[in-house]
Amino acid sequence: MRRSFASDNNAGLHPQALAALANANQEHELGYGDDPYTQAAEAAFVAELGEVAVFPVLTGTAANVLAIAALLRPFEAVICSRLAHLWVDECGAPERFTGCKLIPLDTPDGKLQVAQVATALGGRGDEHRVQPRMISITQPTEVGTLYSLAEIQALAEFAHAQGLYLHVDGARISNAAAALNCNFSTLLRETGVDVVSFGGTKNGLLNAEALVFLNPALAKEMPYLRKQAMQLNSKMRFVSAQWLPFLNDQLWLRNAQHANTMAQQLAEAVFALPGIEPAWPVESNAVFAKVPAGLIAPLKAEFYFYVWDETDSIVRWMCAFDTQPEDIQAFKAAIVKILKSLESEPQA
Amino acid sequence: MRRSFASDNNAGLHPQALAALANANQEHELGYGDDPYTQAAEAAFVAELGEVAVFPVLTGTAANVLAIAALLRPFEAVICSRLAHLWVDECGAPERFTGCKLIPLDTPDGKLQVAQVATALGGRGDEHRVQPRMISITQPTEVGTLYSLAEIQALAEFAHAQGLYLHVDGARISNAAAALNCNFSTLLRETGVDVVSFGGTKNGLLNAEALVFLNPALAKEMPYLRKQAMQLNSKMRFVSAQWLPFLNDQLWLRNAQHANTMAQQLAEAVFALPGIEPAWPVESNAVFAKVPAGLIAPLKAEFYFYVWDETDSIVRWMCAFDTQPEDIQAFKAAIVKILKSLESEPQA
Amino acid sequence: MRRSFASDNNAGLHPQALAALANANQEHELGYGDDPYTQAAEAAFVAELGEVAVFPVLTGTAANVLAIAALLRPFEAVICSRLAHLWVDECGAPERFTGCKLIPLDTPDGKLQVAQVATALGGRGDEHRVQPRMISITQPTEVGTLYSLAEIQALAEFAHAQGLYLHVDGARISNAAAALNCNFSTLLRETGVDVVSFGGTKNGLLNAEALVFLNPALAKEMPYLRKQAMQLNSKMRFVSAQWLPFLNDQLWLRNAQHANTMAQQLAEAVFALPGIEPAWPVESNAVFAKVPAGLIAPLKAEFYFYVWDETDSIVRWMCAFDTQPEDIQAFKAAIVKILKSLESEPQA
Amino acid sequence: MRRSFASDNNAGLHPQALAALANANQEHELGYGDDPYTQAAEAAFVAELGEVAVFPVLTGTAANVLAIAALLRPFEAVICSRLAHLWVDECGAPERFTGCKLIPLDTPDGKLQVAQVATALGGRGDEHRVQPRMISITQPTEVGTLYSLAEIQALAEFAHAQGLYLHVDGARISNAAAALNCNFSTLLRETGVDVVSFGGTKNGLLNAEALVFLNPALAKEMPYLRKQAMQLNSKMRFVSAQWLPFLNDQLWLRNAQHANTMAQQLAEAVFALPGIEPAWPVESNAVFAKVPAGLIAPLKAEFYFYVWDETDSIVRWMCAFDTQPEDIQAFKAAIVKILKSLESEPQA
Repeated sequence: MRRSFASDNNAGLHPQALAALANANQEHELGYGDDPYTQAAEAAFVAELGEVAVFPVLTGTAANVLAIAALLRPFEAVICSRLAHLWVDECGAPERFTGCKLIPLDTPDGKLQVAQVATALGGRGDEHRVQPRMISITQPTEVGTLYSLAEIQALAEFAHAQGLYLHVDGARISNAAAALNCNFSTLLRETGVDVVSFGGTKNGLLNAEALVFLNPALAKEMPYLRKQAMQLNSKMRFVSAQWLPFLNDQLWLRNAQHANTMAQQLAEAVFALPGIEPAWPVESNAVFAKVPAGLIAPLKAEFYFYVWDETDSIVRWMCAFDTQPEDIQAFKAAIVKILKSLESEPQA
Repeated sequence: MRRSFASDNNAGLHPQALAALANANQEHELGYGDDPYTQAAEAAFVAELGEVAVFPVLTGTAANVLAIAALLRPFEAVICSRLAHLWVDECGAPERFTGCKLIPLDTPDGKLQVAQVATALGGRGDEHRVQPRMISITQPTEVGTLYSLAEIQALAEFAHAQGLYLHVDGARISNAAAALNCNFSTLLRETGVDVVSFGGTKNGLLNAEALVFLNPALAKEMPYLRKQAMQLNSKMRFVSAQWLPFLNDQLWLRNAQHANTMAQQLAEAVFALPGIEPAWPVESNAVFAKVPAGLIAPLKAEFYFYVWDETDSIVRWMCAFDTQPEDIQAFKAAIVKILKSLESEPQA
Repeated sequence: MRRSFASDNNAGLHPQALAALANANQEHELGYGDDPYTQAAEAAFVAELGEVAVFPVLTGTAANVLAIAALLRPFEAVICSRLAHLWVDECGAPERFTGCKLIPLDTPDGKLQVAQVATALGGRGDEHRVQPRMISITQPTEVGTLYSLAEIQALAEFAHAQGLYLHVDGARISNAAAALNCNFSTLLRETGVDVVSFGGTKNGLLNAEALVFLNPALAKEMPYLRKQAMQLNSKMRFVSAQWLPFLNDQLWLRNAQHANTMAQQLAEAVFALPGIEPAWPVESNAVFAKVPAGLIAPLKAEFYFYVWDETDSIVRWMCAFDTQPEDIQAFKAAIVKILKSLESEPQA
Repeated sequence: MRRSFASDNNAGLHPQALAALANANQEHELGYGDDPYTQAAEAAFVAELGEVAVFPVLTGTAANVLAIAALLRPFEAVICSRLAHLWVDECGAPERFTGCKLIPLDTPDGKLQVAQVATALGGRGDEHRVQPRMISITQPTEVGTLYSLAEIQALAEFAHAQGLYLHVDGARISNAAAALNCNFSTLLRETGVDVVSFGGTKNGLLNAEALVFLNPALAKEMPYLRKQAMQLNSKMRFVSAQWLPFLNDQLWLRNAQHANTMAQQLAEAVFALPGIEPAWPVESNAVFAKVPAGLIAPLKAEFYFYVWDETDSIVRWMCAFDTQPEDIQAFKAAIVKILKSLESEPQA
């Protein structure tokens, strides 16, 4: 399929990731992570983040669900944005697997703030009420916005003062670090995050998600929980091998910077056009645009993408590690052509 | 790591599988299975088995658990062997995800028989009792034995007469078909099986498991259930691509025949040695041997493998698609050497 | 403890209920509902509501949870008010037992409306999203307001048009029927409700809750589900016996009318006082009042009650079947006395 | 219904229990256990057992399930007898609510022994395997036999040495204490039990079950778990009041001694008859008899009871607190009459 702006997971593997995978195909290795590639991947995470416990899993949903399963009891609850992937896009996997309630809060820009979270903490100690125990944020958010380091730190401090954990859904964590021009340690450890769903798949890898505990003591039950969650990968070496160039050779940064840069170029290109406006600021590799309703169908026919909000004609255009400037030019040209045809149409 | 007899999942990808994976790395494809590779893989399953509903998942445990989740309500139960992977090796994932009880029956050779299953059907209609609704068998069994086609058919007929489903855990289903010298349709459709956990990973693929419903009408809820089970793979094309040579080019058969043949050669080699006896007949790619207790530690130090039963000194040696005759010779030589040294040792 | 306005479940058993319970203590009866009292109770429900399937359970939370368990699959969802008992006061029992997600909508007066529910139905058929399958309303609501018959009917019609069920949490269903001056059939069957958590406990009975399916065909799995939910009562006759005067002798109506009348009298008494205003209209047996903050602590010391909203100084005062006019007079007198003392206090 | 030997839960409330319940019907009390009756009941348990945490629940199944929910994580497992109520008669409630696997062991006399339990502890630390964490025994067992104090102590010591908990399903715990001629402290604390499902319902009370933690520190999460399990009783005082005569006035002992004595008399009466033999020794209030197959149907028509094992013609006859010597005589007479008629019938 032609390169499009549908999703960064529509891109394949970065050649370095594929080479690493292929290179791991040497003779035999023990299964289930007891292999040198997995050990090296863990060491790479430790090099980035200091002492951590790392649990590779196969999907981002699994990482999010296991963060809850590891840290909460079923009568405890997770506070998240009503836009969170956890709330919207996991088909209820968190509730089903953990039994925990998610408490969704309205967030116009996708970001939870301390004052708002504080309003959701009622009923502590009341046996009739679920007990909030985790704040889950997505960085960058589902609408492409970014928490500043200070905002994350404020949430972490508040969480810890209240006996809660701070979880980061980092499906696109590389894009956040690249955009904030910081490394993972600054983004995740120095801010006080407890556990991260660390995504590689959307940034050029294959089935490479990891649940990373900044405090390894929190992960004691994880080996069993990962297996119960059907995520213990027998030929784990082939995923683990991909993390090596990703972390050790800064593939994460090159890929993410490129995708972010393309999003900026895409934004410049499209927001210069009449009737196309940003729905949210472009802060990572996503461009959310409010567009003329008539543009959507013909443009999708040429370049597939997803409508975010049917009612308000908001669409989502994602850039990936392999997005090319010529893709943006072609996309812009297609829009221009369609807009022109819309103009010339008699109004209904 | 040196090729060993520890597990067929210690082998990597067959070169054709790796080539198929690499070949799928072309531009963009829609995520979550809405891509031509996945469509082709489904067609390949249909070509083998007739009208089926196919749901690729990432681990064998997930396939087994989802078979239950799709067909049973939480107050229904699964009858299985006490040796079943489902019972022993999935860390309680079936119970946790589905709520269903598993009812384990003692099976000396790993195989359930109709008469025995019939004894476990008490309490039908009694609200205090779980209601058996599925028989789950493993083919080949966890101890390497095979159900005959007639045995499977008898179980299916009994199951259907009693309002139960018959599930096959086919983690090594290729080895069974190869050993029985039949195709998948003869093995699974003609016998009356309802749903199969169809394994590719242990036969040369990567993360390639599929839950296959012989009656597609039973699979209506599966899209949601697979997502809830955290098994919806965003870059699904890279798994799907591997099924193409596997099914369309009979890679499954070549790989499985080879592994089975190697197991026969291994059996001939080791059972000729003094004090080494078959624990179960060698009917697929597994060799289970009762060995002198003193053999185990020094042999494992050279060729890693798993002890099946510590008390009775039974060990498991698996052959894979890449096992070579020289591996068997080297293994036999190592055993001979150790046995000799054991003889010469003064008895305790 | 002195009669107060804390909750209608702080009242005990109505003497007729206690007499019925005591009268059932004759010799032996079979356990688990296979007794003549339970059969008579079922007949009494059928006399009220036509053909129904009735499942006595022991708590209101159990009735609500089992309504979901019986009708939804774990990837389906319930739309409810953010004020719903189901969402707020059941410690996550619905999520834990059923795996289903609850989707809370903001409702200033506790009542869901069709237009609002319609906005929550996005993602039908999308495997990433939970699938809404039930609308749950509370009648009267948690803030004492009432759905009109027309409003319920509109929700039922909308629900059925969309393939959803309509559930009514009727913990105080008698108060609703009494206030709307209708019988249960008009309230529940003619409006099109599918399933009701039918409460007796808050209206003078003991552990008398029942899950009532207006369409018995929906209840096929309930015997097993009730047992799994730990709600199968061995000595069921002692609960069942209480439903007989309740339904057959219209104890429900006398009790509920009395409580509702008392609430009206209480409202008249307190809303005549300065600084005490209704937070919601008084439509059943609950009075919600916005009061001077300083009133709360001293009044609670005399007559226990619950603060509904700390921030806005809203309190809840419930009337029960045994509330007496003199209780209201004493309560009013206490308020007057405290208000006077507040006035005379020097302002901080 | 005529008094029979079907089940001790077919008897109603002992008059003292009913009087206590009725006596609690005074004015208002706070709901959910925040009342003086519940406090007094807790004190009564403490007087019997020393410092304990007591959680009244409404059914015995709930007590058993909550014991697991409180102490185990979902990847941990319970070892029990294959005859255990937990395994056989709770419709999978333990698995559904806790996610934990139960591991049933064959026990000819209903009793687990240390050596046998030891064989079920394989796979400790292996992420593929559930981790046994609790031994659950029933005292008296489901077949009426008793663990000696020494046997319980041995299981407790073994459990603790292995990092496991010992749970006692004490649905008929009074009958055990009475039969062993000891108090509850000797039976449960001195032996080292961790948690007990303490039953009152089968010994003359109504909905009176309690989960009792001998070490209160283990019960920290119980308030939330009980609510999640739909067992938080709003009008708890009416159950709590019944525990007062039960514990403080030794109603438990009088009732249980009587039932046990009646079982001995019943055993003497029936085992003197030809063709009627004990299936298990009569050690509490249950008589299990192997009888001529032809006896069952006509005898059940006169005195209802349950067949325990259809194949072997084993029946269960339970005595209750209200069983009378004349019931036994009438029952024996009925048997004699039927046996005579069987003799005179021509053999098939």
